[in-house]
Amino acid sequence: MSQANIAMIGLGVMGKSLALNLIDHGFIVTGFDIDPTHRARAKSEAEPLSQQQGKGRFLCAESLAEVLAKLESPRVIALSVPAGAIVDSLIKDLINAGLSRDDIVIDTGNSLWTDSERREDEYQGKLRFFSTAVSGGEVGARFGPSLMASGDKQAWDAIQPMWQAIAAKVNKEGLPVGQFESGEACAAYLGPAGAGHYVKMVHNGIEYADMQLICEAYHFMSTVLAMSAEQIGRVFEQWNQGVLNSYLMEISADILQTLDPQTGKPFVEIVLDKAGQKGTGLWTAVNSLQQGAPAPTIAQSVFARAQSSQKTMRVNAAKRLRTQTDSLADIDQQQAVDQLRDALYCAKLTVYAQGFDLLKVTSDKEGWQLDFANIAKIWRSGCIIRAIFLQEITHAYCRDPQLENLLFADHFADELNSRCCGWRSSVANAALSGVPMPGVSSALNYFDSLRCETLPANLLQAQRDYFGAHSYSRVDDDEANKYHLNWSLEPRKQIRV
Amino acid sequence: MSQANIAMIGLGVMGKSLALNLIDHGFIVTGFDIDPTHRARAKSEAEPLSQQQGKGRFLCAESLAEVLAKLESPRVIALSVPAGAIVDSLIKDLINAGLSRDDIVIDTGNSLWTDSERREDEYQGKLRFFSTAVSGGEVGARFGPSLMASGDKQAWDAIQPMWQAIAAKVNKEGLPVGQFESGEACAAYLGPAGAGHYVKMVHNGIEYADMQLICEAYHFMSTVLAMSAEQIGRVFEQWNQGVLNSYLMEISADILQTLDPQTGKPFVEIVLDKAGQKGTGLWTAVNSLQQGAPAPTIAQSVFARAQSSQKTMRVNAAKRLRTQTDSLADIDQQQAVDQLRDALYCAKLTVYAQGFDLLKVTSDKEGWQLDFANIAKIWRSGCIIRAIFLQEITHAYCRDPQLENLLFADHFADELNSRCCGWRSSVANAALSGVPMPGVSSALNYFDSLRCETLPANLLQAQRDYFGAHSYSRVDDDEANKYHLNWSLEPRKQIRV
Repeated sequence: MSQANIAMIGLGVMGKSLALNLIDHGFIVTGFDIDPTHRARAKSEAEPLSQQQGKGRFLCAESLAEVLAKLESPRVIALSVPAGAIVDSLIKDLINAGLSRDDIVIDTGNSLWTDSERREDEYQGKLRFFSTAVSGGEVGARFGPSLMASGDKQAWDAIQPMWQAIAAKVNKEGLPVGQFESGEACAAYLGPAGAGHYVKMVHNGIEYADMQLICEAYHFMSTVLAMSAEQIGRVFEQWNQGVLNSYLMEISADILQTLDPQTGKPFVEIVLDKAGQKGTGLWTAVNSLQQGAPAPTIAQSVFARAQSSQKTMRVNAAKRLRTQTDSLADIDQQQAVDQLRDALYCAKLTVYAQGFDLLKVTSDKEGWQLDFANIAKIWRSGCIIRAIFLQEITHAYCRDPQLENLLFADHFADELNSRCCGWRSSVANAALSGVPMPGVSSALNYFDSLRCETLPANLLQAQRDYFGAHSYSRVDDDEANKYHLNWSLEPRKQIRV
Repeated sequence: MSQANIAMIGLGVMGKSLALNLIDHGFIVTGFDIDPTHRARAKSEAEPLSQQQGKGRFLCAESLAEVLAKLESPRVIALSVPAGAIVDSLIKDLINAGLSRDDIVIDTGNSLWTDSERREDEYQGKLRFFSTAVSGGEVGARFGPSLMASGDKQAWDAIQPMWQAIAAKVNKEGLPVGQFESGEACAAYLGPAGAGHYVKMVHNGIEYADMQLICEAYHFMSTVLAMSAEQIGRVFEQWNQGVLNSYLMEISADILQTLDPQTGKPFVEIVLDKAGQKGTGLWTAVNSLQQGAPAPTIAQSVFARAQSSQKTMRVNAAKRLRTQTDSLADIDQQQAVDQLRDALYCAKLTVYAQGFDLLKVTSDKEGWQLDFANIAKIWRSGCIIRAIFLQEITHAYCRDPQLENLLFADHFADELNSRCCGWRSSVANAALSGVPMPGVSSALNYFDSLRCETLPANLLQAQRDYFGAHSYSRVDDDEANKYHLNWSLEPRKQIRV
């Protein structure tokens, strides 16, 4: 009876795809879902696979007890269920069904990282809790996801062979290879249980920003340069051959060249411009605010989605707020497109710098000792933000694991220096022509603030001392020494506080 | 014995100042503080006041029981203690000391609004819970604060005469008048208990942004226009005579013309450029993200403080990241200063629009029915963001209480139209010259996004449908109808989901 290598509980789109991927790589998977139609679907899709040489098998279970009975020891049980209370209730059911303390439970859902941290503590001694954030959506899960694993370090020994087998792979150049080709696997152990979901959360924040930046480039070309969706799609296709090569660029090029089957119009033009969100970008923005590790461009991307949702107000504003703008009539289209490419590249770099800074700040606070090179490596394929320049990020962190800021790496510092003129021009042109570019321009402001040895926060601290006696430090004294100026008296005297 | 009109528990800077203000206006105040030196200080500062004609008195209490004994019925007890658990433990102590269910407890601290909501429920039937957010710092509390009151509506009848007496006042033009002059009081009842602290939280978010915008104008003049602190201070003084007249502009002008008593250098230049924060701006930014009511400029201001705190990284970046910028050598100083004034004004307006939109969204969700004209009114004096243009905001909401967006009011729409060229030029010049202007430029991007009938969120939704089957709505169909395109097959077919 005890013959399955791993169980998958929850056979929805993601759970089923991971199970099939495991079977593809020769593993025997037992699976259960409370919904019998999900069980039946998994069973019938696994069937033809199992008949091929070298493949694994699917052992459908009708209950959690049956799942436990079918697993070899120590049991490895992956959960693929919605984040939240259901994860805990399922774990409790498993414990009641006879789970032993050496068994491993892996949460592969989109859990909030602090929940994973709590669970690691809560289930200590009852089971070995592990978490794995899965990126790549349905296709990724089925044919090669990026797997951000964390939790009980010893459990990793049992899990690693399976995760490395099913993960996306890259070749020596850092480029994605096929499902069964050999290469470096995009799966890594990152640290204690919260780390995997935290890294995934930041990944999603970067994804939000990356999408927003591409949209802004499209919007500028469409509005200011009066280019058609198809023309812009071809520009994106071209960009996708160079430093901007990425999955998101590739699909954007495809989308823009797609026609609506219903009307024959460019597909993008029949899509309503109200963006949805599932919340992980929001989590990243909130966390960045709370950690004091600024990721303004990620936050701007969340705000941009919110503003897109205020459609009725925007339609009214478009009538109500007709303001003067420059027409940029004499703008050179090719030059503007090239500038935009550089803007997109620089802004994208800056977003990654914000994301990695956030990872660094949190890693230090939590004592995770995150390996940034490893993180860049496993993002090179399988996940939504996969992009050619993650290879350069990998190199940067391999050369200097303690790199203070991603933008300080020679390669990127040089790139920024040579491309920033286009970035600056694009932001200036957008401002003058009245076309919003919140992401690209917030990234430039982050970059210019970072480069700024003295920010005007000196005036701000003086204001705070003036109205609230919040005190200030002096540039010519130890920062720990705090002073207050008696603003309401003349002559003003400085008081040490 | 029972003769005091109100008790003040907590006689720190804020509690003591409110108590003295109440005595100034003829009320008899009993007070208690766990710290005997605070009690003694309040007593000795109240003493000379009490001897003047028409003033009230201070009755120092040595225990909570004594406080209760000294109060007329129903008792009105104001708490001025740090936000958090201490508020609840103090209320429990008061209940144990014999508080009756008709007695009123007012939390005047900086509580999180959701705590005030919870307390209103929790103490129902045990006392009448009320909250009042106080703005204006020590000086405001002593001589006229802005008071954002909320909670048990019947309790307001007992509190109103006191709050209106001690609040800041404005004349018919909306300008602040002296402590004992007659005028409209900056105190209002806003709704259920969470409302007052919520409105104060948004006030503080606006304050963060307002401060940041002023700092950016200073930074641009100092860096790009090479003006001295004193020169900039004089420009601010001039601006303070016009539409930009505000408390923050006034103190900034003063600060910039102040010399450091220690070195004789411009004061602002000896202050370390690392901004602190107490968290209410952060709360506003987080809440704005969570509510989906975009206040990106408030968030940018929080990020700007965080970025200022990364001083070591910035010093290194200043060496590492020397990028190409335009020198703007031929820039006309007077013209640039005028453009900057318009930029500051437009950005400030936009920040208020963001803040009021956030108030509106939350008011609708919570069923508070906030009166925006009333809120603008009580911000005209006493609080940190007091400014002449709050009179115009008051007018706008008096004329149309349901105004969809503050910027749609005729006066402001006209102002934006006539001044936005300067705004656009300032943002463009900052981008080209490499000087950060995150707040001013995020406000412009908010404005231009708002004015945009079709945002590129159509491409974004298409991306989400492509990689995650998140579906889309069509512009030519009911928004509620959701579709998915089968991106992996050719020819692509649309599926209703």
